[in-house]
Amino acid sequence: MNERLMSQIRFLLEADKMKSLYRQTYIIADESRGASMRDSEGDETLHHRRENDAEHSFHLALFAMILAEYSNEPIDLLKVLKMVTVHDIVEIDAGDTYCYDAEGYKTKEAREKAAADRLFGILPQDQQKEYRFLWEEFERMDTPESRFAAALDRMQPMLLNYTKGGVSWKEHGTSADMVYNRNKHIADGSQELGEYMEKCLSDAIERKMLK
Amino acid sequence: MNERLMSQIRFLLEADKMKSLYRQTYIIADESRGASMRDSEGDETLHHRRENDAEHSFHLALFAMILAEYSNEPIDLLKVLKMVTVHDIVEIDAGDTYCYDAEGYKTKEAREKAAADRLFGILPQDQQKEYRFLWEEFERMDTPESRFAAALDRMQPMLLNYTKGGVSWKEHGTSADMVYNRNKHIADGSQELGEYMEKCLSDAIERKMLK
Repeated sequence: MNERLMSQIRFLLEADKMKSLYRQTYIIADESRGASMRDSEGDETLHHRRENDAEHSFHLALFAMILAEYSNEPIDLLKVLKMVTVHDIVEIDAGDTYCYDAEGYKTKEAREKAAADRLFGILPQDQQKEYRFLWEEFERMDTPESRFAAALDRMQPMLLNYTKGGVSWKEHGTSADMVYNRNKHIADGSQELGEYMEKCLSDAIERKMLK
Repeated sequence: MNERLMSQIRFLLEADKMKSLYRQTYIIADESRGASMRDSEGDETLHHRRENDAEHSFHLALFAMILAEYSNEPIDLLKVLKMVTVHDIVEIDAGDTYCYDAEGYKTKEAREKAAADRLFGILPQDQQKEYRFLWEEFERMDTPESRFAAALDRMQPMLLNYTKGGVSWKEHGTSADMVYNRNKHIADGSQELGEYMEKCLSDAIERKMLK
């Protein structure tokens, strides 16, 4: 049996776990079906629920394709798409760290490095290298592609949250300062998208979505 | 306000609905947490549940990146990634048609054409054209990119279903013939992946996952 193909299949099946890793952001859709349904174990049901990593990564890929023209610098879109598709895979082992969780951030790097070793390590050596490097580049934000990908990674949850009336900000008591600080980096990838999100944030403050 | 950006944002928010469109395939992960949890309305909970279109599209993008080398013909991977990311967007209006549902297939084309008009129509004209053409190309399967994307679109649910012990085949009483017929097209995009899936199917029959 083709050993190379087997390890690629193993990686693809492992990545299925992204569909069960829930983030802090809520999906917009099916709002109408009720805001507080819980099953017998107290978990949220499908109708009003958080977004998972697979859905977030899909959405980022679509953001990248549709908004590529707003990057401050010329970008290789294929590289951006690869990057956003794998950027959260380390969370399979390391879990999601909420972007305003200062405690969690202290151990985030070590947890994610170990996760990257194991997860990208499933792939054949050449692909292991390619995707590990892409993930590291994304984390460093020191290239046009990673600056743009990081901008979208900030913009997408903010936009969902804003569209949902700030539900996740309210849950966490997030302040306007915290969101403004995070939003600032959007302009590093795209001046235009940064300005657009700033307008959304001003409106969010006016409508009391943020402390 | 930038009219172009506004219509792009509208499209991206509309695409959020992909996260609430459930397919027949089950996700693999969290199997251990119980196979038949239902909430008060009889809907499935998060622990054992079907895959949605956003997750499926994410998974296909990852399949395309990792398995590109097995395409029968040289492909433009960026085009394949764009294609798989938008290929199911029409289901927001047209719904999911189960691949072995002969009745549903009769009206599928008309329903999906109308959906494509409305959904891609949200985008600025140039992007409207690009993504509408990509979707049509995917449906026609008459280019190297669309043949490879279509192969992955068949392979991914089969592989999940096989890994889950054939749960969705059993639910629908799907026969080995039906799956073999569908599987045949995988080889049009990739001989090697077609052969691999054929081995999985033989094993599935031996293990009585299929009628």
